Amino acid sequence: MNNFNLHNPTRILFGENQIEKLASQIPEGSKILILYGGGSIKTNGIYEQVTEALETFKVIEFGGIPPNPEYAVLMEALSIIKSENITYLLAVGGGSVLDGTKFLAAAALYEGDTPWDIVKNNIPTKKGMPFGTVLTLPATGSEMNSGAVITRAETKEKYAIGGPGLFPQFSILDPTVIKSIPQRQLANGIADAFVHVLEQYITYSVGANLQDRFAESILQTLVEVAPIIIKDPSDYKAAANFMWSCTMGLNGLIGQGVPQDWAIHMIGHELTALFGIDHARTLAIITESHYTHNLESKKEKLAQYATRVWDITEGTMEERAKAGIQKTTDFFKSLGIDTKLSDYTDDFKGTAEEISTRFTDRGWVKMGENATLTPTDVATIVEMSY
Amino acid sequence: MNNFNLHNPTRILFGENQIEKLASQIPEGSKILILYGGGSIKTNGIYEQVTEALETFKVIEFGGIPPNPEYAVLMEALSIIKSENITYLLAVGGGSVLDGTKFLAAAALYEGDTPWDIVKNNIPTKKGMPFGTVLTLPATGSEMNSGAVITRAETKEKYAIGGPGLFPQFSILDPTVIKSIPQRQLANGIADAFVHVLEQYITYSVGANLQDRFAESILQTLVEVAPIIIKDPSDYKAAANFMWSCTMGLNGLIGQGVPQDWAIHMIGHELTALFGIDHARTLAIITESHYTHNLESKKEKLAQYATRVWDITEGTMEERAKAGIQKTTDFFKSLGIDTKLSDYTDDFKGTAEEISTRFTDRGWVKMGENATLTPTDVATIVEMSY
Repeated sequence: MNNFNLHNPTRILFGENQIEKLASQIPEGSKILILYGGGSIKTNGIYEQVTEALETFKVIEFGGIPPNPEYAVLMEALSIIKSENITYLLAVGGGSVLDGTKFLAAAALYEGDTPWDIVKNNIPTKKGMPFGTVLTLPATGSEMNSGAVITRAETKEKYAIGGPGLFPQFSILDPTVIKSIPQRQLANGIADAFVHVLEQYITYSVGANLQDRFAESILQTLVEVAPIIIKDPSDYKAAANFMWSCTMGLNGLIGQGVPQDWAIHMIGHELTALFGIDHARTLAIITESHYTHNLESKKEKLAQYATRVWDITEGTMEERAKAGIQKTTDFFKSLGIDTKLSDYTDDFKGTAEEISTRFTDRGWVKMGENATLTPTDVATIVEMSY
Repeated sequence: MNNFNLHNPTRILFGENQIEKLASQIPEGSKILILYGGGSIKTNGIYEQVTEALETFKVIEFGGIPPNPEYAVLMEALSIIKSENITYLLAVGGGSVLDGTKFLAAAALYEGDTPWDIVKNNIPTKKGMPFGTVLTLPATGSEMNSGAVITRAETKEKYAIGGPGLFPQFSILDPTVIKSIPQRQLANGIADAFVHVLEQYITYSVGANLQDRFAESILQTLVEVAPIIIKDPSDYKAAANFMWSCTMGLNGLIGQGVPQDWAIHMIGHELTALFGIDHARTLAIITESHYTHNLESKKEKLAQYATRVWDITEGTMEERAKAGIQKTTDFFKSLGIDTKLSDYTDDFKGTAEEISTRFTDRGWVKMGENATLTPTDVATIVEMSY
């Protein structure tokens, strides 16, 4: 087990009717900006619950944060924060709204030239404007971590930001929201959370037995509840397990003291930037090729995963590892998620070179848990995903 | 899954050489009281590491906090905190030192008549004196929770205290300390952590699949590393898994959204108060009788435990449940821990009635996850443990 430093101050209010507790979580006298996305919260009842809970506060709202939260849109929200002297942010939405709000929490108190620096130069935020979240779409884990991903359409770029000042002060997780989520987004949420866990687990062993088992616990639970959720998202027990699994998959716990990969995400982000493919689906496109290309260095963990999560007990380590990869692909497909780039676009030729060049142009840093993946490896992985 | 409210602000610094980071965790200008126990930290090198790391601070020390931290001793420390205007507490030790320090954190800022009220009336501490810990004996989980157990020898009483103000600000967990722990205490630590998990897990199902799996993960890991630790406590990988399992077993995570029992602890505390038996050993004495007496209400979870932790796949639910209980007893014995009261004292007759009467005298509250255990049940369980 590697050394680690774990600190997660976010309070989780989990369960039915927790939105009622909103007012108790926000300092009296706050002037709140509520941030949300495409407006589904106005049709599923959450908007009413939130505004009712906050009736003693001064509240302004800003809707329309798009999936893959867009810098230009967020800059409009930032100007409202400044002109209206907002003191508290409340994100009501999924990962994109939460991530966008984290950028705003950072940008609101940033004293440099332009907030784009925070994104472009990955400047860690030590202290941001305080904020809370009401999660309406489980997937990203953003509700209990201090990271975010911001997109700039203008330049087709997508970058991660973070810092200890970007933990939500609280997050409200009410599994009853899941019943109003479209099936496509449910499938995306399951796949996204699944790959978050894989990125922290399918590396090489450092003897962190407990972290391994926690990772496997989340994967097993997602596998168990996925078909129920897809069939009947109003099943509260399944929804609660799905929601809590997504949070635990990326709140920093299972990644403590172990190597992490994240190459699937780094490559996947480029597919979203280039083609606008849903984030989770880009992960499903890259996973099989990435693990197949890196079988040699990952096979011990892949075989362990195959045995413990998929109950594959026969065969050599390599055979079990390969069977684990196949099970993963089958799992994505069972969610209705296609796993090849050509399933999403006819314009895929040259993508491998383009992505590889983009990384090189940005000042290449070798990827993967061993920092051994070169631009050539990335091109190979993308090409294998066509 | 039941609703829950999770907040754990303790920072964990885990691994070798983390004690060096002490100074960075304590506010500049603090006047620190270092609290420790029987003085083993002066022979295993930890005392030197701690004092060296704190050389820029004003530091006073208070040693001699006994196992089952004793109120009278803690009151001596409290008078030093007040007379010396201490502003920060640093616990260096195992669960007893940490628990004692939590009482002091509460008592130092308490404004009522006597600090005994905090203990006797279980007054929750909203704000305590800030404190950190350097853990030298994994077991209780006290390093990452806000609870403590305080003993008063005078009246043979043992009570739990707690409150959101009693989380350590930070805890340093260096697994290399384990190699200097006597085998008896290692065995106690493993058994203690094991039963902490059982108390939050062997109840009835509420469909909290992820919490169940996390609990099983900790149990499996303890079972896996126990023989290694007992044989060679200098095995760093095993020690790290043991240490982290103890923390995760009682930092509040696995108990979120699920029923909890704690009857084994409540009865066990009385055995320590009456006979001075090590805390962990009292748990080992009570576990089998408690689960056997409550087999009907617990058998579903006991069978699940038997299958997932002990790989018992044959037999009816009841047969597997019983096999799981037997495996637990065998596990305690494999650690060199006796599991009957008569192994510890010849003076056991009448204990069942005495404990049952003590509970009744204190204003009985029915125990167990269903709040159904009566004084008669307790007497039966204790008698079964003779």
